[in-house]
Amino acid sequence: MKTPIIAPSILASDFANLQKEIEMLNRSEADWIHVDVMDGVFVPNISFGLPVTEAVKRYAEKPLDVHLMIVQPERYLEAFRDAGAATITVHYEACTHLHRTVQHIRALGCKAGVALNPHTPVTLLEDILEDLDLVLLMSVNPGFGGQKFIERTYEKINRLADMRYTLNNKLLIEIDGGVNAANAGKLVEHGADALVAGNFVFSAPSPEEVIASLKHLPIR
Amino acid sequence: MKTPIIAPSILASDFANLQKEIEMLNRSEADWIHVDVMDGVFVPNISFGLPVTEAVKRYAEKPLDVHLMIVQPERYLEAFRDAGAATITVHYEACTHLHRTVQHIRALGCKAGVALNPHTPVTLLEDILEDLDLVLLMSVNPGFGGQKFIERTYEKINRLADMRYTLNNKLLIEIDGGVNAANAGKLVEHGADALVAGNFVFSAPSPEEVIASLKHLPIR
Amino acid sequence: MKTPIIAPSILASDFANLQKEIEMLNRSEADWIHVDVMDGVFVPNISFGLPVTEAVKRYAEKPLDVHLMIVQPERYLEAFRDAGAATITVHYEACTHLHRTVQHIRALGCKAGVALNPHTPVTLLEDILEDLDLVLLMSVNPGFGGQKFIERTYEKINRLADMRYTLNNKLLIEIDGGVNAANAGKLVEHGADALVAGNFVFSAPSPEEVIASLKHLPIR
Amino acid sequence: MKTPIIAPSILASDFANLQKEIEMLNRSEADWIHVDVMDGVFVPNISFGLPVTEAVKRYAEKPLDVHLMIVQPERYLEAFRDAGAATITVHYEACTHLHRTVQHIRALGCKAGVALNPHTPVTLLEDILEDLDLVLLMSVNPGFGGQKFIERTYEKINRLADMRYTLNNKLLIEIDGGVNAANAGKLVEHGADALVAGNFVFSAPSPEEVIASLKHLPIR
Amino acid sequence: MKTPIIAPSILASDFANLQKEIEMLNRSEADWIHVDVMDGVFVPNISFGLPVTEAVKRYAEKPLDVHLMIVQPERYLEAFRDAGAATITVHYEACTHLHRTVQHIRALGCKAGVALNPHTPVTLLEDILEDLDLVLLMSVNPGFGGQKFIERTYEKINRLADMRYTLNNKLLIEIDGGVNAANAGKLVEHGADALVAGNFVFSAPSPEEVIASLKHLPIR
Amino acid sequence: MKTPIIAPSILASDFANLQKEIEMLNRSEADWIHVDVMDGVFVPNISFGLPVTEAVKRYAEKPLDVHLMIVQPERYLEAFRDAGAATITVHYEACTHLHRTVQHIRALGCKAGVALNPHTPVTLLEDILEDLDLVLLMSVNPGFGGQKFIERTYEKINRLADMRYTLNNKLLIEIDGGVNAANAGKLVEHGADALVAGNFVFSAPSPEEVIASLKHLPIR
Repeated sequence: MKTPIIAPSILASDFANLQKEIEMLNRSEADWIHVDVMDGVFVPNISFGLPVTEAVKRYAEKPLDVHLMIVQPERYLEAFRDAGAATITVHYEACTHLHRTVQHIRALGCKAGVALNPHTPVTLLEDILEDLDLVLLMSVNPGFGGQKFIERTYEKINRLADMRYTLNNKLLIEIDGGVNAANAGKLVEHGADALVAGNFVFSAPSPEEVIASLKHLPIR
Repeated sequence: MKTPIIAPSILASDFANLQKEIEMLNRSEADWIHVDVMDGVFVPNISFGLPVTEAVKRYAEKPLDVHLMIVQPERYLEAFRDAGAATITVHYEACTHLHRTVQHIRALGCKAGVALNPHTPVTLLEDILEDLDLVLLMSVNPGFGGQKFIERTYEKINRLADMRYTLNNKLLIEIDGGVNAANAGKLVEHGADALVAGNFVFSAPSPEEVIASLKHLPIR
Repeated sequence: MKTPIIAPSILASDFANLQKEIEMLNRSEADWIHVDVMDGVFVPNISFGLPVTEAVKRYAEKPLDVHLMIVQPERYLEAFRDAGAATITVHYEACTHLHRTVQHIRALGCKAGVALNPHTPVTLLEDILEDLDLVLLMSVNPGFGGQKFIERTYEKINRLADMRYTLNNKLLIEIDGGVNAANAGKLVEHGADALVAGNFVFSAPSPEEVIASLKHLPIR
Repeated sequence: MKTPIIAPSILASDFANLQKEIEMLNRSEADWIHVDVMDGVFVPNISFGLPVTEAVKRYAEKPLDVHLMIVQPERYLEAFRDAGAATITVHYEACTHLHRTVQHIRALGCKAGVALNPHTPVTLLEDILEDLDLVLLMSVNPGFGGQKFIERTYEKINRLADMRYTLNNKLLIEIDGGVNAANAGKLVEHGADALVAGNFVFSAPSPEEVIASLKHLPIR
Repeated sequence: MKTPIIAPSILASDFANLQKEIEMLNRSEADWIHVDVMDGVFVPNISFGLPVTEAVKRYAEKPLDVHLMIVQPERYLEAFRDAGAATITVHYEACTHLHRTVQHIRALGCKAGVALNPHTPVTLLEDILEDLDLVLLMSVNPGFGGQKFIERTYEKINRLADMRYTLNNKLLIEIDGGVNAANAGKLVEHGADALVAGNFVFSAPSPEEVIASLKHLPIR
Repeated sequence: MKTPIIAPSILASDFANLQKEIEMLNRSEADWIHVDVMDGVFVPNISFGLPVTEAVKRYAEKPLDVHLMIVQPERYLEAFRDAGAATITVHYEACTHLHRTVQHIRALGCKAGVALNPHTPVTLLEDILEDLDLVLLMSVNPGFGGQKFIERTYEKINRLADMRYTLNNKLLIEIDGGVNAANAGKLVEHGADALVAGNFVFSAPSPEEVIASLKHLPIR
């Protein structure tokens, strides 16, 4: 039975005590640590950037899954690799030269991902899919935690799963936004490989148990 | 004898354990907590933004001195006030409608500051000085900690101090960048009221002692 | 027999006497009043904005169909709702976060539309169509009145009509640019629901009669 | 005794009946008709642009004093000349090549003005003043009518009047924002030549009388 | 047997002796002279612009095939026509109003092309293909010569060739980037009509022979 | 007797035969070779960039004086140093972090210059002058050759010469635009050290004689 990759997002964690939060994630069944970088220009929120990512890296025993919600991400690829990123995901909507950016991420030794905003169709990826390790589908609008999951996401996973069958069967599909116990199983059944979870994990009494429950979803 | 306002910058602190760092600052003789927000567009670094500022505020017993190194800062004034800012300082070089932005900061109940990059002359402030609580002179180029202090800063303080004599004798002059034991006294003697210190404080064996030593400089 | 929604555009009306023009539209068989807002940045013309829309609203007895040809329309949604918009249509090419913008328009109590420039394919709407009340297809390049109708529009209506059959059968298709007696019937036959008309209406000796003739097209 | 040039701003007029408003201004003692063009990018409001200016021109018997609160105004100089502008004023803060823009306005046969936001010092004009017909000092922040007059304006007039004494004694100084019976006389005494008035004129029971009263201020 | 159009790119030629290079191209079997204009903003390189294009035109006896890798190319269409362009190709990723830009190029008397970056799918052209003379597919990332050919290009040619069969059978397909003896034949077999070649031509001992060899490929 | 540095601008030379032009300059009494890089965004012309500069450098026996009329010149400093620049001059109007940019130029081993557009006052340089090797005063608007010299330039030289007396007596003042036999002597008498000349040199029957005549001006 397939188990999803669980990538808790530190955007929802306690920023006053990141070491403890990271140590909890180290102990947990989380696979990756999701790092949501927002610049206040691409998205209407400024979250955090390099010094916080470096602090996470100092304690993390799991790969950092860095999601750059910033304009012209090509300016900061090297810096985030140096700060500890294992995967760097950039937004389709932020890249004029997406192929070059993806090549650059891989040349830096990282896995390369592309994220799509909710309205951006997966068909736009047909000429870049072969070059990717990961596609991140936003299932809420990027910028803030705590938003409602967009149902249309299932259909996008279906279409993307069809494309990967033809073009790149090693591609991982990651879902970010509003993931919880009610939709996680269905997401995986549709073809999702990795689930980002923020408030659902960190606002729970026992984040470790929530992570475990997502990890061991009953998948049909 | 005049003692300067000391504003340690958390940019140089341990982001994995901000609660401890803030509690140390609470115990120390620091007056303000300096919060360096960088968006990666106005300056070539992305530091942190709202969630980190909120985390600092949860523990801070001293006023947050928020320095926005971001483009179009008018978009985020209300958010940073809500996150706990006591003072909001924006960059002259980032504001087309600086007077409106300053009015807005004050209408939000915060003190209003304007920061100048090293090459920007203080004479450009002649029509806004009356409306300010604080001018922040960058004594290094904004974007990174650990740079060398620019000697020209003394002359800028002199000129700004002359302007405040005529236009606004309640104005505070704050110096940010490369402040240390070797220049702090001279800065205050030239007219500085507030000193931001980052690495000089946080990379010391005892940050509290460094803060105390800056606070009790022998001023001529 | 289906009759189209007729939306005369005040861009072609007499701006020196808008009250009279609006009163004429109130008497006429027009359904909506089309309001073409251009900022001189998204399109190479500056038409008008909030104070003119408010003036139209004071006299209009029919819904204002506001078409924002502006960059980053998310900045002005609330202002145009307050100015009286019933529908707010934004351009696909102007929105990085189109899903959020559409949600925002609806949360403001307005109907939400998305406009496509002539070269933009309707397939780009596949993940947003369910959330829309209206799609506006530009049948000339936006910016000026009096241009020649682009024949390719019929094919775009066909494709969009196919998509709506599957995804959103309440969606309205609106056509804007070069609409006249020669093409209006054919547009409706292909699937258009609403027709914007500017010069064709206002440069006629009797605008009311022209509106009536469009309203009562012989549709096959 | 010196009488000021009075330039009522149609931004505050009834946009549903501009012909009547312009005919009232034709009858009045107004000297110029002030036309406030806002693009929603340079300033946080979209007012109106070319078609409204053309409508005003069709009835106006007095010169149109066009104030472009838009980014990169060099793109629209010819269009506003064609729409009927006698004077075109651009913002210092919006022009990278201000000398070229001013030359261009004059080559189009218009008088050339430069506007300064409230925080922008007049000393920045020292190398362009010889080439100007007019400097417009914003005495409120541009974008909206009905704001409070900024007292610092008197000092700016003093300094600009000193500069014109040396550099260009034909220069006109125009004041825009919050002008009313309480400050108009003092503005003229300090050196203002032209006064823009919006709400103060158009929200009065008799705009013509208000214009006359401004025109015949008791000047010391 | 079909022979391809050969368009050597002067980007790889000796800029110190362009006259000689152009005279060599005049003597050779080259069909067009490819002119790669880069502004340092759309692509990360500044190549050359108008004065160099004019210098090429003074000696060229073959049509100039101008490829504008610049932002907002609509600003410079007339200038490049005046400098001697026979074809003007703009980037899909650089044009908000692509239909207008294409119309403008044709109205200037030039052939109109649209270029796609490697990641941009050809399906985005479905509503503009009828209006084009040429589509240029980038087979490396634009900005620099000497990069490795992207294999995905063959599939893009296939899809574009299918679209042209339906929509515009006069359309030319041009391939730009990494073209050499090893891939040129296969490109033509897939449907390419024109081949840009830079280093492969100009770094050869005899550029004329290389051009001839590309011109007379053994096509299956 | 002081003789000026003569810096012929290759913008006015024959781009089809740069090697010959550079060899002529090598033989002449020219001191520097002025290289005018324009990106079509900062100025309304695209001249040339890196490959042309490299071609000039291959033959030049005199220092390249590179004038970057481009936005965000910090992106290309290293590339132009590698292409052979001895001096790199950036525009005040194009640099948000001018001090950092100047430091960077010097760290690359080049001399650092700042250029001012005609309307930009020299007083804006008061906090950067100590760090500069050169100030370039534009005496026409940048973008095109062949424009008329702006008389105000003499006064700007006077003021800048006063500032250098106090702040940096090694600073060179360079004048660019409309320089010819009629004004060159007067420019030097006012304090100019270096003269850029374009059309005046290259459109003459004997450019070498014109250069010599500028070099040996009768200075009072």
